[in-house]
Amino acid sequence: MDVRLKRRRAGRNRAVEGDSSADLAADQMDRLKLGTLDEHLGYFLRRLQVSVFKDFIRTLAPMDVRPAQYSVLLLIEANPGRSQAAIGQALDIERARLARLLHGLEGRGWIGRRAADGDGRSHSLYLTRGGEKALVRIKALTARHEAWLAEVLGSKRRLLLMDLLKEFG
Amino acid sequence: MDVRLKRRRAGRNRAVEGDSSADLAADQMDRLKLGTLDEHLGYFLRRLQVSVFKDFIRTLAPMDVRPAQYSVLLLIEANPGRSQAAIGQALDIERARLARLLHGLEGRGWIGRRAADGDGRSHSLYLTRGGEKALVRIKALTARHEAWLAEVLGSKRRLLLMDLLKEFG
Repeated sequence: MDVRLKRRRAGRNRAVEGDSSADLAADQMDRLKLGTLDEHLGYFLRRLQVSVFKDFIRTLAPMDVRPAQYSVLLLIEANPGRSQAAIGQALDIERARLARLLHGLEGRGWIGRRAADGDGRSHSLYLTRGGEKALVRIKALTARHEAWLAEVLGSKRRLLLMDLLKEFG
Repeated sequence: MDVRLKRRRAGRNRAVEGDSSADLAADQMDRLKLGTLDEHLGYFLRRLQVSVFKDFIRTLAPMDVRPAQYSVLLLIEANPGRSQAAIGQALDIERARLARLLHGLEGRGWIGRRAADGDGRSHSLYLTRGGEKALVRIKALTARHEAWLAEVLGSKRRLLLMDLLKEFG
């Protein structure tokens, strides 16, 4: 494991309320074995994903933006005028959850909806002026998150991982 | 994207309640652009992790076991007698959530706790006979999940991905 990631983790663990630290210290003298877990890709995939999302949330805290909100903003930016259903399907976000998420972004004045041509039931989504401005600030923060990630993974391994993951994206 | 994964996804999307399917069909004629999202490793990491966890949960449904429960069972199996705090720290599971999870496994008669030597506050965890038997059936199902994963990713790419992820695991 990369030293920096390890240090970050250690920091996190200190912050988490755990059992009495004396117990933990005594019990930690032996490292735990992973056993069969060591053969499961899903376990390692989840661990890195959680680390990456934690850094994202921490880095984006000044704008109070979560990963799913950010994805939706970027998809609306890249595809103005598309429907809620299309955005939800592209990101695999369940309908009710997407509705809540969009409601939140609308409440902050970042997105708007227009009735789609000739159909009152369907709404096309777009970024407001305020949303565009917010996204500039948000992207400045995500650049910091990506810089952290490149440092932690090493830029070569980051690219390799990206290529492998994109094949299934 | 691998055809099989795509087919599974299509199946899932059909099952999800969405906006009216006519809207969706019309709007889907143009594929959405990913925009800046295409540069974020976290996005692709999350997509594959969600796919893998969905298949895990579906495959393990006969035993009603979720990924976090499975990890805890495997860690107790590999490290009998270790404390709740040590298991929680190794898996990075927050204390209250782990307590609920262990309570559930205890209720199913799969795990037991003993007071650790000379300390009434600390408990060491172990698998019961019933837990060991359940784990045999559970592992038969996870083998199916892993076979699906090797087929979807290709075993060479699965190994490459595993190596990359383990460096940060």
